Amino acid sequence: MRYDIAIVGSGPAGLSAAINGKIRNKSVIVFGNENLSNKLIKAPSIDNYLGFFEISGDELKNKFKEHIDSMGIDICQKKINNVYAMGDYFALMSGDEMYEATTVILATGVEYGKPIKGEEEFLGRGVGYCATCDAPLYKDKKVAIIGYNKESEEEANFLNEIASKTYFIPMYKNEGLMRSSNDLDSSIEVINDRPVQIHGDNLVNKVAFKEKEIDVDGVFVIKDSASPKSLVPGIETDGPHIKVDINMKTSIEGCFAAGDCVGKPYSYIKSAGQGQIAALNAVAYLDKLKIEQRKQQQQ
Amino acid sequence: MRYDIAIVGSGPAGLSAAINGKIRNKSVIVFGNENLSNKLIKAPSIDNYLGFFEISGDELKNKFKEHIDSMGIDICQKKINNVYAMGDYFALMSGDEMYEATTVILATGVEYGKPIKGEEEFLGRGVGYCATCDAPLYKDKKVAIIGYNKESEEEANFLNEIASKTYFIPMYKNEGLMRSSNDLDSSIEVINDRPVQIHGDNLVNKVAFKEKEIDVDGVFVIKDSASPKSLVPGIETDGPHIKVDINMKTSIEGCFAAGDCVGKPYSYIKSAGQGQIAALNAVAYLDKLKIEQRKQQQQ
Ligand SMILES: Cc1cc2nc3c(=O)[nH]c(=O)nc-3n(C[C@H](O)[C@H](O)[C@H](O)COP(=O)(O)OP(=O)(O)OC[C@H]3O[C@@H](n4cnc5c(N)ncnc54)[C@H](O)[C@@H]3O)c2cc1C
Ligand SMILES: Cc1cc2nc3c(=O)[nH]c(=O)nc-3n(C[C@H](O)[C@H](O)[C@H](O)COP(=O)(O)OP(=O)(O)OC[C@H]3O[C@@H](n4cnc5c(N)ncnc54)[C@H](O)[C@@H]3O)c2cc1C
Repeated sequence: MRYDIAIVGSGPAGLSAAINGKIRNKSVIVFGNENLSNKLIKAPSIDNYLGFFEISGDELKNKFKEHIDSMGIDICQKKINNVYAMGDYFALMSGDEMYEATTVILATGVEYGKPIKGEEEFLGRGVGYCATCDAPLYKDKKVAIIGYNKESEEEANFLNEIASKTYFIPMYKNEGLMRSSNDLDSSIEVINDRPVQIHGDNLVNKVAFKEKEIDVDGVFVIKDSASPKSLVPGIETDGPHIKVDINMKTSIEGCFAAGDCVGKPYSYIKSAGQGQIAALNAVAYLDKLKIEQRKQQQQ
Repeated sequence: MRYDIAIVGSGPAGLSAAINGKIRNKSVIVFGNENLSNKLIKAPSIDNYLGFFEISGDELKNKFKEHIDSMGIDICQKKINNVYAMGDYFALMSGDEMYEATTVILATGVEYGKPIKGEEEFLGRGVGYCATCDAPLYKDKKVAIIGYNKESEEEANFLNEIASKTYFIPMYKNEGLMRSSNDLDSSIEVINDRPVQIHGDNLVNKVAFKEKEIDVDGVFVIKDSASPKSLVPGIETDGPHIKVDINMKTSIEGCFAAGDCVGKPYSYIKSAGQGQIAALNAVAYLDKLKIEQRKQQQQ
């Protein structure tokens, strides 16, 4: 099946895009996670979303959930690793699986944290963002996973089946991990320390911490959202953000973007507003395509 | 008193700007009306504002009202006729009164209706948008008011005190007006017909309807929102819309715009999102000014 609109991200930008696409009768798929957005559920009290005040992030998440449920919109709990423009459609890769859509809306949010020293330098030369994609390269080798979210533990377990040695470096609050690590295979070595640099020659060979180093062949950095260029090869960016015009069009025809990933301010209602603009412009694009196709068939 | 931010318009764009300016501790004044937005209260059922579904416009208005009330934001029920850029501040004119602000956010909405033939051609040559401003010009003369909203009846009454003859041409649903016109002075002649053209030579001299004509010296067209160029002299526009960049900056430094008045899609959450962007950029502009002023004082 080829969807009319594929939305990458289930935060306010992605959800607002989804309801607006659905209202316009388009087939929509949303990739994201059960929590909708980790940033949303973490907010203690929100006052700047017109219509809601003194509401917790978790409550606002529930409002959003009710809204999408009422419209029959589900979240496909898959991480999209790559989006490829194929001419008249897009291929969205999630591990081994592929999804097709005529238009794409990127609503991935941004990672606020700065990359680790060496992370960008060695990207593709030992540093990767998708363990399930690149795991075969590390058969019987030593790998480190720098994980910014709970889900990264799964990627560590998966890599551990293949690698000779797996280090897991949690970058999120993880009191649980220090004591018993129920979710993590017991043969994985957990390092509760901040990595300061990824070293290498031609390829990665070390991760350095404040007081120690470990030898590795590969490093996976697992974040909620990847850099736009690694997600969508060839897309134009402006610093860490995806370049868009006022209609939320990116540099790639049929590909739109909204929310934190297109720039500041980082906030909910701005993201939701842009999600709507992106969806309505995707709808206009789809309708134009349909008319063109009809004309071609008549000739 | 000079306000940090003056917001022209009390729809979703203006209100979202107001709460965001207020959260950032700026002094804010909002011009608009009691209903907040006539377009808002008219909507039968709204589904595309993320977080609310199957909500009537009137209910959503109440949510917005509660939100601004909780923050101590009042609506100043004045119509702004002109905004003048004075160098380091803006002067906002409402009839005889003047308000000052360091930054302005235009959130006036748009009038969906097309202008009447001749309306734009004779603007300033017998056609006006503000009866209270230009009334003295029509002492003992014949005037017509083409009114798109209930409030225009007040302008008709006001003109009628000065003019020798006043015609009132209601363009809104007005069953009441045809039978008894309680709100309108009895000496005003109501014409329940659609004007097709405003005629004139050098100055306006006639309003033509399908089957008849009336002789007049002036015509006032009273809408919820005026054309951007007549509101803010010199502002750059793009068709009927105010030109803005992605940060909601207009062509005039310190002047921002958001909502329907900057372009399509015409919708609530897009307007609210842009209102937030405008406010946060106005805040950044104010903060930058403050630093510059401090530096100059130190020299
Ligand atoms: C603690 C905290 C408090 C905050 N408080 C406020 C506040 O009070 N008011 C306010 O306006 N803003 C607040 N913010 C900012 C706000 O959270 C963000 O601006 C907002 O969530 C951005 O929305 P978004 O839809 O662009 O992205 P996000 O909310 O970040 O959502 C993106 C989603 O997409 C998923 N995703 C990303 N890439 C992929 C992929 N490749 N495949 C599948 N899924 C993917 C992510 O996992 C995530 O679930 C706060 C942020 C934090 C961290
Ligand atoms: C019947 C109807 C149904 C709709 N349904 C939907 C829907 O379901 N979903 C959706 O997303 N959108 C809907 N819309 C569109 C929506 O109403 C608008 O997009 C939205 O109201 C725009 O918000 P805004 O803040 O830009 O301007 P507005 O809501 O138009 O508010 C502007 C306000 O500023 C005031 N103002 C203007 N100029 C001045 C001045 N010079 N001085 C003082 N005050 C001034 C006006 O009187 C008005 O109160 C609907 C519109 C209509 C008419």
